[in-house]
Amino acid sequence: MQDRSVALDDTHDPARRSWVASANGHPDFPVQNLPFGVFSPPGAPARRAGVAIGDAILDLQEAFRAGLFTGEAAHAAALATDGPLNAFMAAGTEARHALRARLSELLAEGAAKQSTLQAMLHPATQCTLHLPAAIGDYTDFYAGIHHAVNVGRQFRPDDPLLPNYKYVPIGYHGRASSVCPSGTRVRRPVGQWRASADAQAPVFGPTRRLDYEVELAIWIAGGNAQGSPIPIDEAFDHVAGFGLLNDWSARDVQAWEYQPLGPFLAKSFATSVSPWVVTPEALAPLAEGRAGDHDRDAAGDAVYGGAGTAGAVGVGDQRASSLLDRRAAHRASHEQRLQSAPG
Amino acid sequence: MQDRSVALDDTHDPARRSWVASANGHPDFPVQNLPFGVFSPPGAPARRAGVAIGDAILDLQEAFRAGLFTGEAAHAAALATDGPLNAFMAAGTEARHALRARLSELLAEGAAKQSTLQAMLHPATQCTLHLPAAIGDYTDFYAGIHHAVNVGRQFRPDDPLLPNYKYVPIGYHGRASSVCPSGTRVRRPVGQWRASADAQAPVFGPTRRLDYEVELAIWIAGGNAQGSPIPIDEAFDHVAGFGLLNDWSARDVQAWEYQPLGPFLAKSFATSVSPWVVTPEALAPLAEGRAGDHDRDAAGDAVYGGAGTAGAVGVGDQRASSLLDRRAAHRASHEQRLQSAPG
Repeated sequence: MQDRSVALDDTHDPARRSWVASANGHPDFPVQNLPFGVFSPPGAPARRAGVAIGDAILDLQEAFRAGLFTGEAAHAAALATDGPLNAFMAAGTEARHALRARLSELLAEGAAKQSTLQAMLHPATQCTLHLPAAIGDYTDFYAGIHHAVNVGRQFRPDDPLLPNYKYVPIGYHGRASSVCPSGTRVRRPVGQWRASADAQAPVFGPTRRLDYEVELAIWIAGGNAQGSPIPIDEAFDHVAGFGLLNDWSARDVQAWEYQPLGPFLAKSFATSVSPWVVTPEALAPLAEGRAGDHDRDAAGDAVYGGAGTAGAVGVGDQRASSLLDRRAAHRASHEQRLQSAPG
Repeated sequence: MQDRSVALDDTHDPARRSWVASANGHPDFPVQNLPFGVFSPPGAPARRAGVAIGDAILDLQEAFRAGLFTGEAAHAAALATDGPLNAFMAAGTEARHALRARLSELLAEGAAKQSTLQAMLHPATQCTLHLPAAIGDYTDFYAGIHHAVNVGRQFRPDDPLLPNYKYVPIGYHGRASSVCPSGTRVRRPVGQWRASADAQAPVFGPTRRLDYEVELAIWIAGGNAQGSPIPIDEAFDHVAGFGLLNDWSARDVQAWEYQPLGPFLAKSFATSVSPWVVTPEALAPLAEGRAGDHDRDAAGDAVYGGAGTAGAVGVGDQRASSLLDRRAAHRASHEQRLQSAPG
């Protein structure tokens, strides 16, 4: 298999500092990260692409219009400016890399154009964050055997891990239209569940077993023609970025409804995803083989190529990059039993 | 429950004939039907809305630009002209009804403007038909107990009908991005399946149990705010139309992969749907209580309100009407075992 590692360059230099003071030492958004998202500035409902830098968001639309990008970076910025980021995500690795390199240069200490850019920064806390892309499909995978066994035990105590688990990626399509940006209020769903395991009939009411799962979100872009598989070696070219995802679940509803067709209403009321898309380039220094203390077992949970499951795409660019795939990280899955009425 | 029946009017008059000669006595597209779709005329790749009439398609975009509609009908046509039909579908019953009434008038024998309209007709066989709308979600329901038992027997001979079936609509999210217009070539999928029921490991290869199912497609439009249910009485207002759907399935792949999360790769390679959307108005004369010989059992299969399952919608008009829901009709479900290699 081809080496898909991303080359390290000046954008990864841990010594690089930004003239945006809050970025230096920022736990999420130092100048080495530069994730992309879609936001509305204070008082302006229109959506546009932005880049997180420290406590601020750089308005990518304004920066593009000011002529701060040339060549491949300008091409990439043009695709991104109007948000959603679908066309930009579908443009692939080179376009994304070029835009990142130029943004790093513009935001680094000592950069020219600093005063021009300063006027394009908005305080993040005053902005509204949106979904970064129009999501055409959303697939939830079982990607860790420990999670598969633990969850399986909730529903099938005697038979937690099914024989297919070790052969084929186990996943299901979720509801794409109820994926919402992190922070969106989620209403406790009502539905059918059994008051006891041997009850013959269900009751109807607010779920009593609302659960959350921290998962890894993988943004998949650049579709394939229906019926044409993506070779494993090319799968990573379709990964536009990463985020965290909260797979809300009504476990009592799920236990009642999930056979034979899988999770449905127990999951479809909401799925929260980070509004910021962290690029593969930003994560390059953490790639396996680079970080000495890297957790190989955990990394091994997420090596399924997207090829077998990357869906065919039929209706143009906006759709072409609209697949949201994810692999479960499940390093912090806990059941949350809240007994109150729905909020 | 409120009476949701659609009033009969002149558009339903069985005596009404069209000046489009091929429409009179046409098995699919008489002047009483007037389904909506999206097409490209011969030699013109641009997509626009159209109406099927006999062997022809009326170009709705041209008719709108020629000023043939006024009032509510013009509003509806304006939403539809550029296809996809999402905004038109989301506009609801009154807009759709007004446009239908005017189209019926324009296409009826004796209509003025006949020569103007004649120039806007394209021979259907020379046009390319597309998906009628951008599909944001696609849900497959078990809607007939006979089907549920028959299919259940394939996978669980001893326990075909599960206890939840009689209490809650059983469904799953399908892959929205591989729904394609009827007639699209479907490639036989490859995947994992077991050569015998007691095999410990699967084999990989072209499916040997490619199956099809004739189902009823229901186009759902006009979303609801996430967390706000649609009352049963209002559910029908979200039905934009009907069609037929082919739920392609790789049954051997399905049997191996479907537990515990439901059908996935066994279904996601393709789902074919009619490119024409038949309106609730067109079907009004067939509604229960009108047709004396109506099959009540079959109708009973499809009475689940969409309320409990209509998804929340977050990203604007194009998305608001992009739910494709369906109920299985399953009156002609047969297994098709083709032994040849994938085409």
